[in-house]
Amino acid sequence: MADRTLLNQLVEALRCLPGVGPKSAQRMAFHLLERDREGGRRLARVMADAMERVSRCKRCRTLSERELCGLCANPNRDESQLCVIEHPSEIVAIEQATDFHGLYFVLGGRLSPLDGIGPEELGLDVLEERLKEGDVKELILAISSTVEGSATSHYVADIAARCGARTTRIAHGVP
Amino acid sequence: MADRTLLNQLVEALRCLPGVGPKSAQRMAFHLLERDREGGRRLARVMADAMERVSRCKRCRTLSERELCGLCANPNRDESQLCVIEHPSEIVAIEQATDFHGLYFVLGGRLSPLDGIGPEELGLDVLEERLKEGDVKELILAISSTVEGSATSHYVADIAARCGARTTRIAHGVP
Repeated sequence: MADRTLLNQLVEALRCLPGVGPKSAQRMAFHLLERDREGGRRLARVMADAMERVSRCKRCRTLSERELCGLCANPNRDESQLCVIEHPSEIVAIEQATDFHGLYFVLGGRLSPLDGIGPEELGLDVLEERLKEGDVKELILAISSTVEGSATSHYVADIAARCGARTTRIAHGVP
Repeated sequence: MADRTLLNQLVEALRCLPGVGPKSAQRMAFHLLERDREGGRRLARVMADAMERVSRCKRCRTLSERELCGLCANPNRDESQLCVIEHPSEIVAIEQATDFHGLYFVLGGRLSPLDGIGPEELGLDVLEERLKEGDVKELILAISSTVEGSATSHYVADIAARCGARTTRIAHGVP
């Protein structure tokens, strides 16, 4: 089989998905081509669209195709509580598992000067501006407790203290 | 989060892939959006292209975007041996595991009258025409040994007998 057939290109391209090795990629390609072309077409369409249009919410920095994400635009959420998280996926987990009704702020990572990730890369200037508005009374830190995570929590807590917001942390480990 | 965000649409669309549940679909969507937009764009492009252009080789019925697939178009393959298989994916397996140098014929399934799968759905008329050309001396049946598979093997062997080709079967089970 010539290497550059469309089938082989599809198998190769599917491997950009996390957890998909050569065998699964092949199974996926055959499945779509033999049994679900409509699903494949829809997936290709939505994926192309999402790659171009999904950006970050200007207020909480989560992934969103609108300037303001659904949560930040929702007037029923409690503006006085702001939960600081590392990744957008954690919003889904927290929304499903808790009855938290405040808002979120997504860092997108942890402070790591050696990798070139400083306060600006995490949007901490945006966070400080927001805290200065004075609506946020409590900042809930949901940042992992690794070395870099602790340094980040510390840095964020300092900003909160300067802006007069209370800082709490979510529980870790076995109670 | 509103249900019809592009992110949610992407998560949903990814579930058409075999073996991808809600959790993996979410992980895949976040991975592409946060870390590999270029990979996502390429995948969307190749997938859309493959869904439209990949059809069947007119000679062996495997998946191919050309009228004649790379194997059927290769003059170095042995035309006297024809291996009859159920699915295109088996070509990859046989090519990788054996030194078979003949050609293939893809049925795309097994005879199953109750499901509306008769000889024509499996291209057995095409196979008969090909055997009548007289180049194929040996037909190698690599069809699963289920009830439907055995019926299919039998049917194909009858066609081969009528056309004067010898029929052999690949080994099954423990030798």
